[in-house]
Amino acid sequence: MKSIAALALAMTFAPFASKAASGVEEDVSSVAPALQRYQQETLDNVLWKRPGLSVRDRSVVTVAAIITRNQAGLMTEQIRRALDNGVKPAELSEIITHLAFYAGWGNAMAAIDAARPIYIERGIGADQLPISVPTLLPLDEAREAQRAAAVEQSTGPASPGLVRDTGEVLFRDLWLRPDLAPRDRSLVTVSALISAGQVAQVPFHLNRAMDNGLSREEASEVISHLAYYAGWPNAFSAAPVAREVFEKRANP
Amino acid sequence: MKSIAALALAMTFAPFASKAASGVEEDVSSVAPALQRYQQETLDNVLWKRPGLSVRDRSVVTVAAIITRNQAGLMTEQIRRALDNGVKPAELSEIITHLAFYAGWGNAMAAIDAARPIYIERGIGADQLPISVPTLLPLDEAREAQRAAAVEQSTGPASPGLVRDTGEVLFRDLWLRPDLAPRDRSLVTVSALISAGQVAQVPFHLNRAMDNGLSREEASEVISHLAYYAGWPNAFSAAPVAREVFEKRANP
Amino acid sequence: MKSIAALALAMTFAPFASKAASGVEEDVSSVAPALQRYQQETLDNVLWKRPGLSVRDRSVVTVAAIITRNQAGLMTEQIRRALDNGVKPAELSEIITHLAFYAGWGNAMAAIDAARPIYIERGIGADQLPISVPTLLPLDEAREAQRAAAVEQSTGPASPGLVRDTGEVLFRDLWLRPDLAPRDRSLVTVSALISAGQVAQVPFHLNRAMDNGLSREEASEVISHLAYYAGWPNAFSAAPVAREVFEKRANP
Repeated sequence: MKSIAALALAMTFAPFASKAASGVEEDVSSVAPALQRYQQETLDNVLWKRPGLSVRDRSVVTVAAIITRNQAGLMTEQIRRALDNGVKPAELSEIITHLAFYAGWGNAMAAIDAARPIYIERGIGADQLPISVPTLLPLDEAREAQRAAAVEQSTGPASPGLVRDTGEVLFRDLWLRPDLAPRDRSLVTVSALISAGQVAQVPFHLNRAMDNGLSREEASEVISHLAYYAGWPNAFSAAPVAREVFEKRANP
Repeated sequence: MKSIAALALAMTFAPFASKAASGVEEDVSSVAPALQRYQQETLDNVLWKRPGLSVRDRSVVTVAAIITRNQAGLMTEQIRRALDNGVKPAELSEIITHLAFYAGWGNAMAAIDAARPIYIERGIGADQLPISVPTLLPLDEAREAQRAAAVEQSTGPASPGLVRDTGEVLFRDLWLRPDLAPRDRSLVTVSALISAGQVAQVPFHLNRAMDNGLSREEASEVISHLAYYAGWPNAFSAAPVAREVFEKRANP
Repeated sequence: MKSIAALALAMTFAPFASKAASGVEEDVSSVAPALQRYQQETLDNVLWKRPGLSVRDRSVVTVAAIITRNQAGLMTEQIRRALDNGVKPAELSEIITHLAFYAGWGNAMAAIDAARPIYIERGIGADQLPISVPTLLPLDEAREAQRAAAVEQSTGPASPGLVRDTGEVLFRDLWLRPDLAPRDRSLVTVSALISAGQVAQVPFHLNRAMDNGLSREEASEVISHLAYYAGWPNAFSAAPVAREVFEKRANP
């Protein structure tokens, strides 16, 4: 990818990007000085530095929220920040692919549009991307059989096509792709559900996330982080649902 | 409309459009090769060719989802695809107008912005558009009285203005406009509700859709089609609600 | 701000803006003549002139809906309309800041992008903006203690960070900023909740809005106004919740 064409493209995008970045602060202040202060004092200096969730995970959560909510305005800056915070290009690629299914096809396509110039700008080529058909992670057949049976019972009579695709496309393929750890895939999924106000499926996926290694402290902090990026109402709708999951796991 | 000005405008838009179309595949692959593969193998070659829902209806459902979710990125390509798949320009015009009310005014305006250059490009003029004040379809007074009474009871005390507008603007005007069949209007409405995660009103509108001629098999496949374009969580929230509707209709 | 640079910028934006405004009608008609008619007859001539909610408040509600739903297409026109309808620049600035928390950070940033050229164009400078750290309104300690206790009980076990931020950042800071009256802050919050389909928190905030001076008639008309700008389904989901609030307040 590091061809002359790629470099030329990168040069086209880079100046725009850095100009935008340097201008953001005064842009915000010229309309809402308080918002600029909150950005700096409450978000950058406090939220992003809080313990409980690593900076890298905060970027995974934020990017998932921005893509799920299809917010072109923050996408470029947060994708850059994610790469700077240690999210690997291959992981970001898988996050976008994962969200095509969990947020919607158009959301992923908008994320591609935002990521592409950044990948070019940073010289991220095919060698750093996940291959299209990799060797999949091993499937936990027992867990999958349990999941499939539950979905068959609840959803099968309404939409056999949905049940089939959920098994074949999601749990026997997408979730087993190796370039994003199952724990991170769960983190992305839970973040997407909360950001879309889809609490009904939070119990299943939050349990799965914790089975996959997300700690309770991390899950708590995902919710309070998302209050800022998905809005307070979505965080408040998720909290009681998460509380119930935490309590059931503590007293099974 | 086929004036020189229109042709000039069409020439302005057309090259951009075809360039965009030809570049999409490699754009996606340069960030997420797997997503490109899913697009081709799972969506284009399987989903869109599945029986249970015609290609034309899949386009109606997809366009409704994209407009409801306000996804500028897919709008141009899916409006083109809809016209190619047999959705008439007059129908598309009514779909957008219908969604001004069921998805929100801004959503319809964004769809107008996307459709306008395509209509110009294809020489679709006033003669192919629905007239502003047509002869309305006959109203089923009994069904409407039943609907109005239910809404008056549930909503009247909270918002008399909403109740009045629902009757006068929607059910005694919009729903009776002749250039989109009631069955298709229902298909658009159900797709919008599922795409927005608004399941509370799915029972009323899915029943109405089936009364208007949508088959159970088609309704099932609407849900699994929307999993891809509105995200899995919305499809999963809709499925149990649809299941209940199906069961009540089977055993009334 | 009324520097030569500002004027130059204003001149850059103004012609584009007025051209867009003058072209909107024929743009809509060229795709959907009926939608253009509804815009004029149903919205501009009826909805916006209905009693029950002032034109200024309708603008507050509409801007809150547009920002919450992140609809770039209507943002410029509705921000202009709000300023024309008597929403002060300082109030608009606070509305955007408030929605950073209640709709999401990216939504506020997109609103900043839309507002900035309008502020420049109208010569709205720092002297008309709220200062970053003003003297806050007095806190009703009893009401705040009650709120905090309820949230601590429901949300504390799930996310201590969210509980802390809700108190410190929102109710002991944001809500006390003086450049937007508490009644208007509540109006914005209720509009955001309804527009996002987040009815779970409508009871708390609608009660608070009415405690802060919003009349029942105004609240009713907020719902029917939002039917147009946030879509019918969101209005219909909000109505029964509002009805319960109204009834409980009438018969406590």
